[in-house]
Amino acid sequence: MKRFEMLANTMADEIRSGSRPVGSRMPSLRHLTTQHGVSQSTVFRAYYLLEEWGLIRARERSGYYVAPGAALEHKPAPQPPAALESAKVEISDLVFSVLEAAKHPNVVPFGSAFPSPQLFPLQRLARSLGHSSRLISPWSTVVDLPPGNEPLRRQISLRYMGMGIAQPMEQLVVTNGALEALNLCLMAVTRPGDVVAIESPGFYAALQAIERLDLRAVEIPVDPVSGIDLQALSDALDKHPIRACWFMTNYQNPTGAAMSQEKKKALVELLAERDVPLIEDDVYGELHHAATYPLPAIAFDTKGLVMHCSSFSKTLAPGYRIGWVAAGRFAEKVQRLKLMTTLSASIPAQAAIADYLQHGGYDKHLRKLRGAFRNQLASMDTALRRYMPEDSHWTLPSGGYFLWLRLPSHVDAMQLHRLALENGISIAPGPIFSARHEFRNHIRLNFGHPWSDNTESAVQTLASLLEQASR
Amino acid sequence: MKRFEMLANTMADEIRSGSRPVGSRMPSLRHLTTQHGVSQSTVFRAYYLLEEWGLIRARERSGYYVAPGAALEHKPAPQPPAALESAKVEISDLVFSVLEAAKHPNVVPFGSAFPSPQLFPLQRLARSLGHSSRLISPWSTVVDLPPGNEPLRRQISLRYMGMGIAQPMEQLVVTNGALEALNLCLMAVTRPGDVVAIESPGFYAALQAIERLDLRAVEIPVDPVSGIDLQALSDALDKHPIRACWFMTNYQNPTGAAMSQEKKKALVELLAERDVPLIEDDVYGELHHAATYPLPAIAFDTKGLVMHCSSFSKTLAPGYRIGWVAAGRFAEKVQRLKLMTTLSASIPAQAAIADYLQHGGYDKHLRKLRGAFRNQLASMDTALRRYMPEDSHWTLPSGGYFLWLRLPSHVDAMQLHRLALENGISIAPGPIFSARHEFRNHIRLNFGHPWSDNTESAVQTLASLLEQASR
Repeated sequence: MKRFEMLANTMADEIRSGSRPVGSRMPSLRHLTTQHGVSQSTVFRAYYLLEEWGLIRARERSGYYVAPGAALEHKPAPQPPAALESAKVEISDLVFSVLEAAKHPNVVPFGSAFPSPQLFPLQRLARSLGHSSRLISPWSTVVDLPPGNEPLRRQISLRYMGMGIAQPMEQLVVTNGALEALNLCLMAVTRPGDVVAIESPGFYAALQAIERLDLRAVEIPVDPVSGIDLQALSDALDKHPIRACWFMTNYQNPTGAAMSQEKKKALVELLAERDVPLIEDDVYGELHHAATYPLPAIAFDTKGLVMHCSSFSKTLAPGYRIGWVAAGRFAEKVQRLKLMTTLSASIPAQAAIADYLQHGGYDKHLRKLRGAFRNQLASMDTALRRYMPEDSHWTLPSGGYFLWLRLPSHVDAMQLHRLALENGISIAPGPIFSARHEFRNHIRLNFGHPWSDNTESAVQTLASLLEQASR
Repeated sequence: MKRFEMLANTMADEIRSGSRPVGSRMPSLRHLTTQHGVSQSTVFRAYYLLEEWGLIRARERSGYYVAPGAALEHKPAPQPPAALESAKVEISDLVFSVLEAAKHPNVVPFGSAFPSPQLFPLQRLARSLGHSSRLISPWSTVVDLPPGNEPLRRQISLRYMGMGIAQPMEQLVVTNGALEALNLCLMAVTRPGDVVAIESPGFYAALQAIERLDLRAVEIPVDPVSGIDLQALSDALDKHPIRACWFMTNYQNPTGAAMSQEKKKALVELLAERDVPLIEDDVYGELHHAATYPLPAIAFDTKGLVMHCSSFSKTLAPGYRIGWVAAGRFAEKVQRLKLMTTLSASIPAQAAIADYLQHGGYDKHLRKLRGAFRNQLASMDTALRRYMPEDSHWTLPSGGYFLWLRLPSHVDAMQLHRLALENGISIAPGPIFSARHEFRNHIRLNFGHPWSDNTESAVQTLASLLEQASR
């Protein structure tokens, strides 16, 4: 046993025996180094251990104290978070509670925004990371400032080329995930007070961004199968001074809707006529269940008005936080905003993904991943058919890992969210996908995790809670 | 030679011989796969090489074209960027031109914002990265969502403890560098139209953030040695509805000024009386040239009003983009803003730094780094004494790697910036550190790079340009 472990054990015994009562202040650094004749770093590490054991806790600017419940030998297992008290919450509060719930590994993650990380080649990526970080030039911290690591942008550019889209590297800006790309694009083309068209139901991050940047939202209805209602968009363009659109063209979040190529082309033309930029969120495009990548809207853009945002977070490396935008005529503005707000994406992470794209077998991995999602969707469809009541309906998306479930009209998704959480299941309730908290009898289900008996019975439990979750 | 290299060489010969003239379109993917009986990926890689050689270039959505100058055998060496045409530019334009200039490895980086990356233990860090990314749990992408990787926050908390500051881990939010921390803090405590107190001269990112968020700035004068003028701040607080202050308390950028402990305490008390939050930018604190870390202002905070922002970018790992904020009572708000804008910092980078802090010898590295800066400052001081005219003055900071040079009053720092760049030297001209483009005869010099004959003669060159750079 090392010295710091001995010290930690001595103090732990004092705490557990009650000779250091709950709430009492732990001795100072100076005191301990003198008393025990040990170095500061030994005391640090001992306190580190005690905190890890849950025996002590830091209080702001006054030192360490014996933690409540410290007399227990073992920490209690982490509990799922408490359910919300009231349905009257802000979008953001609800979104955060859903995200928080999805953090707990014991919760069935139907509400999660991510697929199972176990479907990703994390070990292979770690190799790329180790390899590329050993080779990295010290100067890359300067040279890889936005627009970003050149080999990575080249690889991304090659993937566009594979779709028949010649995308010059100069217009590609690497970002901290697609979320930053989307936010930067929105900042690049709007001023406070501007009107932005978003989808309804739609990705809550768009609502949050609009709120944060003091913009106004016009919600355009989304058909759960075919996507944005173009007529409604055209009417909205006539009626409101819309400065930008933020749409998901492939496997929309939350519905799973996909716009056809013809519809995407019509969308791009409609916006081009009026010189309105399109922020295209295409983070799920690579997750098509069928054979080919459905062309994104940017493929039809001739005016540099489409900003195509995507990332590797849903397809390869969630934690690396590497996304990008092909920002057309706004590339320089986006690049500057990136420089001003977060400077650059993590450089080893960029280099690792570039290395993986070149040597790691990304396309093979994607084929496997798509197959998994396709199968998991089939399993979930079967389970829903088995357990859900007659008057419920769900989408069967052709890509991605979300489906959109319309429950019988008397069901309140917010209530269901609370009840489900009490039963160890997270779901994403419809109202978080709408500025006016609509879709009260809808939920988004994540089928991006390997199917199991546990998931199967979670669907059954969900169905059994519907009556209780009535309005 | 691999197949793609052969293909690339064949096409390169065609280009160099002129049989594919400059501006002509390169054959399509389909054409080449058929013609040469190779796979798509072979064509990709061949085009990759050709683009790298500077022989072809992508054009938006229409394919690859033979690049101008492609008939040359070798690419010309990268040129330093062209000097600016006119002094009448926006702060941002000028800042970007300075940053852009610092990108070129051939330029003497007196204008750089970073110390030499060669002073950092990048290989040791790469080991930490490889090691920790192999051990990383797939679920960390979910669990390490803000506030951030727990071992990393624990290490940061221990470092606060070493200064006698008990900083609960719950109030620490990990960010993409300090720049993001500062921006999130500013967003957390202001609304558009609010007044924010900043330093003059001060860090240009503060000016940019204020502009971007539609805030109004009140500039508080900074004494180049002792920092913020507290009387001026007090007067400004009486006169303006100041909602937040953004100050650098240790080795201020650009002057190198350091506030004394008494002054920091007085600052915290002055702001506490009026309930005004302090965004404390302390990215240079660890770079004290003397023996101990000068306590930051947060050490004197009893109301949770100080948000202490720092990072590892100036001290250990510039490219990793890992910073943090100890955000006091604003911690939850900051954490949410982080979630909404960039979700999370790169998770392997967080884990690597946590590993390095535990096992890598950070304190030893810091002692070495501080010694290097101390010596480099002495060398620069000697050179300045040798070459600069009598009526120029500079600070000798007690930490960091910037000094602030006041040139004879007839010198125009903007002109000098242009002339210096033509001579392969970057400097940071005074006007970029002020909303009203003041400090026209001041420049910031970076002494964070190993001293050499080259640097020595760059100081001499700078001095020789002063007359030419007159107003």
